Amino acid sequence: MEGGLIFLNGEIVPQQGPHLSALDRGFTLGDGVFDTLRAVRGRLFRLSDHLDRLRHSAETLDLPLPMDSSQLAGAISTVLEANGLANALIRITVSRGVPAERGLVPPSSPVPTLVIHAIPFHGYPEERYRRGYAAILSTIRRNETSPLSYVKSCNYLDSVLARMEAGRRRGDEALMLNCAGHLACGSSSNIFLVSGDSVVTPSLECGVLGGITRGTVIELAAGMGIDGFERPIAPEQLLTAQEAFITNTALGVMPLVAVEGKAIGSGAPGPITLRLREAYEGLVQAIS
Amino acid sequence: MEGGLIFLNGEIVPQQGPHLSALDRGFTLGDGVFDTLRAVRGRLFRLSDHLDRLRHSAETLDLPLPMDSSQLAGAISTVLEANGLANALIRITVSRGVPAERGLVPPSSPVPTLVIHAIPFHGYPEERYRRGYAAILSTIRRNETSPLSYVKSCNYLDSVLARMEAGRRRGDEALMLNCAGHLACGSSSNIFLVSGDSVVTPSLECGVLGGITRGTVIELAAGMGIDGFERPIAPEQLLTAQEAFITNTALGVMPLVAVEGKAIGSGAPGPITLRLREAYEGLVQAIS
Repeated sequence: MEGGLIFLNGEIVPQQGPHLSALDRGFTLGDGVFDTLRAVRGRLFRLSDHLDRLRHSAETLDLPLPMDSSQLAGAISTVLEANGLANALIRITVSRGVPAERGLVPPSSPVPTLVIHAIPFHGYPEERYRRGYAAILSTIRRNETSPLSYVKSCNYLDSVLARMEAGRRRGDEALMLNCAGHLACGSSSNIFLVSGDSVVTPSLECGVLGGITRGTVIELAAGMGIDGFERPIAPEQLLTAQEAFITNTALGVMPLVAVEGKAIGSGAPGPITLRLREAYEGLVQAIS
Repeated sequence: MEGGLIFLNGEIVPQQGPHLSALDRGFTLGDGVFDTLRAVRGRLFRLSDHLDRLRHSAETLDLPLPMDSSQLAGAISTVLEANGLANALIRITVSRGVPAERGLVPPSSPVPTLVIHAIPFHGYPEERYRRGYAAILSTIRRNETSPLSYVKSCNYLDSVLARMEAGRRRGDEALMLNCAGHLACGSSSNIFLVSGDSVVTPSLECGVLGGITRGTVIELAAGMGIDGFERPIAPEQLLTAQEAFITNTALGVMPLVAVEGKAIGSGAPGPITLRLREAYEGLVQAIS
């Protein structure tokens, strides 16, 4: 990976490790949380939303964060400066650290491991958005009964396997239904459909991570006079939608033009998708 | 943790780390597999079954194991000798290592990380088996659509959360239903019910890890003239069963005497459970 220095438990250290104990519960059990945010010309986009979500993820696991939000913000800036990065994707990871005893039961007073790692990121090429993404429907369902479906935890293998499935079938993203058979989300994205003059996205209780970009797009749509709905969505509606798009921090608003080899709408990025993408990119690029 | 030396990528190193990169996919995504086996007076119980399962887990993730089975067996022996352990619980962990690029898509030629860690283990006190375990029913369902439900992966947080839920409600173990509403397994165990002269356990396709102890118990039961059935089980059957027990490598056969505060059968370890436990312990303790 590019970049040379990471933040590890309060210190800036070389990216070439080793950094962690092999007994860290983050490694043995995936017992940790993370969040990913974007720096654009040195500005941290939606920083407080990302830190709030990190805190919510940690609370769901009953995992204490080792720093408050202003300390985390300072640590992120330190990593960016140390690496000379103004445009970056930053990942903050917090695990439950090394336990005194092996087993599932967490230590009562864990000493968390905190890692912040930034890579250069200038967004994806414009051409990629003009083509749009094609998705597959994964055979792996999103488990809406698990608290993990609602947070960013280091248990990310279902999404990894779904994305590998997409790769084998020449898809760019894997969409996942939940166990009740409703549309949930992509392997690392939220999904929106455009129907009439409104946008609709699966409601959070469908096993959906509350994406920061998802929330921003709903706000932007409202400001543009586009109705936004959150509700359970049958997968068949993908093929009757006029347009569709997926969202996440790295992609922003990416048109979804096909699913399982069938065109969505015209098979090209649609006008409402493009308007929302433009509005979103304007927000990301705006200098605060 | 006790013990002083671990096996890391071909070398014996101090248990006090650091050992791993903070960018290892085992840490960032839980992208790894493991298996746990028991050494009893220096003998590795069901070694080939555990190594076969580790290989199956890795294949499910398309993750190459860095050693063949005889090399792994040698590495386990090395760890035991280095720590002077004859009675131990041994965990082998293999992750997908440090990728060239961040993201979900695995590297095409990963350099896996291999860790073997042994802790002293002489089994649980006899008294614990006389009391038996009480279980809760977790609100978290086992996702039978996920390949991860059938392997031992480093995505273990659902089980951690279920076990934490058990702890809060004074249970020893958390039983999980699958998304279809059938009984699946415990947070780190398989479950058996005794009904009439037979034992019954959820069939594997219910989202069940194929426990080595589970398989051994089914074999032992057959040898003792006890019919064994694998089939979907409604959770209500827990309360109509005459006896129940759970199994895993560390516990062996542990009587389950209550669920959600209600007695199973007589509320005490039952005779068929005790016969199977005795047979199982005989097998574990037998000198090969």
